[in-house]
Amino acid sequence: MSELYLYHGTTSVCAIKVRLALQEKSLEWKGQVLDLRRGDQHRPEYLKLNPNAVVPTLVHQGRVVIESTLIIEYLDERFPEPPLMPVDPYERAQARLWMKRIDDTLHAACSAISFAVAFRKELQQKPAEELEAHLQRIPNPEYRERQRASIASGLAAPHVAQAVRNYDRYFGDMEQALAESDYLVGKSYSLADLAATPYMNRAHMLGMDALWAKRPSLAAWFERMRARPSFEPAVTSWLTDTDRRRFGGSHEDTRAKLADMLAR
Amino acid sequence: MSELYLYHGTTSVCAIKVRLALQEKSLEWKGQVLDLRRGDQHRPEYLKLNPNAVVPTLVHQGRVVIESTLIIEYLDERFPEPPLMPVDPYERAQARLWMKRIDDTLHAACSAISFAVAFRKELQQKPAEELEAHLQRIPNPEYRERQRASIASGLAAPHVAQAVRNYDRYFGDMEQALAESDYLVGKSYSLADLAATPYMNRAHMLGMDALWAKRPSLAAWFERMRARPSFEPAVTSWLTDTDRRRFGGSHEDTRAKLADMLAR
Repeated sequence: MSELYLYHGTTSVCAIKVRLALQEKSLEWKGQVLDLRRGDQHRPEYLKLNPNAVVPTLVHQGRVVIESTLIIEYLDERFPEPPLMPVDPYERAQARLWMKRIDDTLHAACSAISFAVAFRKELQQKPAEELEAHLQRIPNPEYRERQRASIASGLAAPHVAQAVRNYDRYFGDMEQALAESDYLVGKSYSLADLAATPYMNRAHMLGMDALWAKRPSLAAWFERMRARPSFEPAVTSWLTDTDRRRFGGSHEDTRAKLADMLAR
Repeated sequence: MSELYLYHGTTSVCAIKVRLALQEKSLEWKGQVLDLRRGDQHRPEYLKLNPNAVVPTLVHQGRVVIESTLIIEYLDERFPEPPLMPVDPYERAQARLWMKRIDDTLHAACSAISFAVAFRKELQQKPAEELEAHLQRIPNPEYRERQRASIASGLAAPHVAQAVRNYDRYFGDMEQALAESDYLVGKSYSLADLAATPYMNRAHMLGMDALWAKRPSLAAWFERMRARPSFEPAVTSWLTDTDRRRFGGSHEDTRAKLADMLAR
């Protein structure tokens, strides 16, 4: 087993955070891609490493680190060059606040919208009985009813509309910070920029570009993030044909609905 | 305004984390107690500092730091003596994981149980119409129905029973770690111990001691935490008569129900 070993997923936003950190640090690593649609993350061997049944999980010298936010801080502390956190304690707290807001709000919003736009399509094609059987297998009744609402109403489902508002608020705050500086915190690229990148990229893949149509500093930041040498190897190069199909399409429907929601 | 200024609450678990850190670092500070039952945290002046309308908020040299987990890391980095984080990056990740599990799960469990045991009593005394009016003022329908279930069923409400299971799992993991060491991470007191202290203390105030009846290492750890010189000034000394009334009583009912829940 390699010194740094990562269990990850091709499009998982949290896995992308860790691949970006590994790439920014020019670290050699090995790993395996879990098929999350097939349920690899629920295999007993994997649950021993990550009881939350999510990717990513990093194993370094036989020691397990879970939670993407903690993994990228671990990598930054264990491999200090180039540094990805500010030196000033106040700026460090600000970088951590951007990441905490992802963990507390933006990540759930990203999942809800991804389901309502991309994953929904596959489920809608199932016969009604098969779909109902799928829903009945979801143990938590709240999640089950949310998924039912997402399949029926997509972006218009109440919790998805709230997720769009949460994305909009986060991006609004990013615009404000990025109008002052090229980076979210201080004058350098940090884990805050790194952690936000896959969430903006996912929004882009889902056809949600209306969220930055009136946010020029954010749009320019995204172009800079995509132009970094880390982006292609950490993000794009992992996409499979299935991933491209899942997130592909014209997104005309999403664009129209989103423009309407944001205009209100 | 003093150099370190804290907006806090007398019994707020998150505020206690920050007071413990200030005390462990022997820092001078000033501040004000917000009356959270009266809704001080929703005042427009306060929302400018903390848009989440929660305590605590730290202002240091005119700069605002929110989120208790980030505040205690900030204090540790800004005032390094005595250090409250391990030196080894892997141990630092473990300390952060204990804190993240509080933020992601234990804190919500603590709120749900506190409501179902202590705050419920006051609401139960209201006339039915007044209680219904109170419930109708809660904008989020999920929260409203949860509060209704808590008032009707206390610890037996489904989401409260889940909260007890979450506490039980966290305390089970603490017992396992504390069987190996006097502290949660490595061989020294760290922010992990500090952050867990108010959650165990709240469980104690609510009569939930059954959670550590069969966990001797956890019980001994709690005694050590309570014996630290920081405990009395950061925790107990802030309790008002109202607080003591709210959390007081024999807890016989809670003790019996909890023993029954844990025996299943």
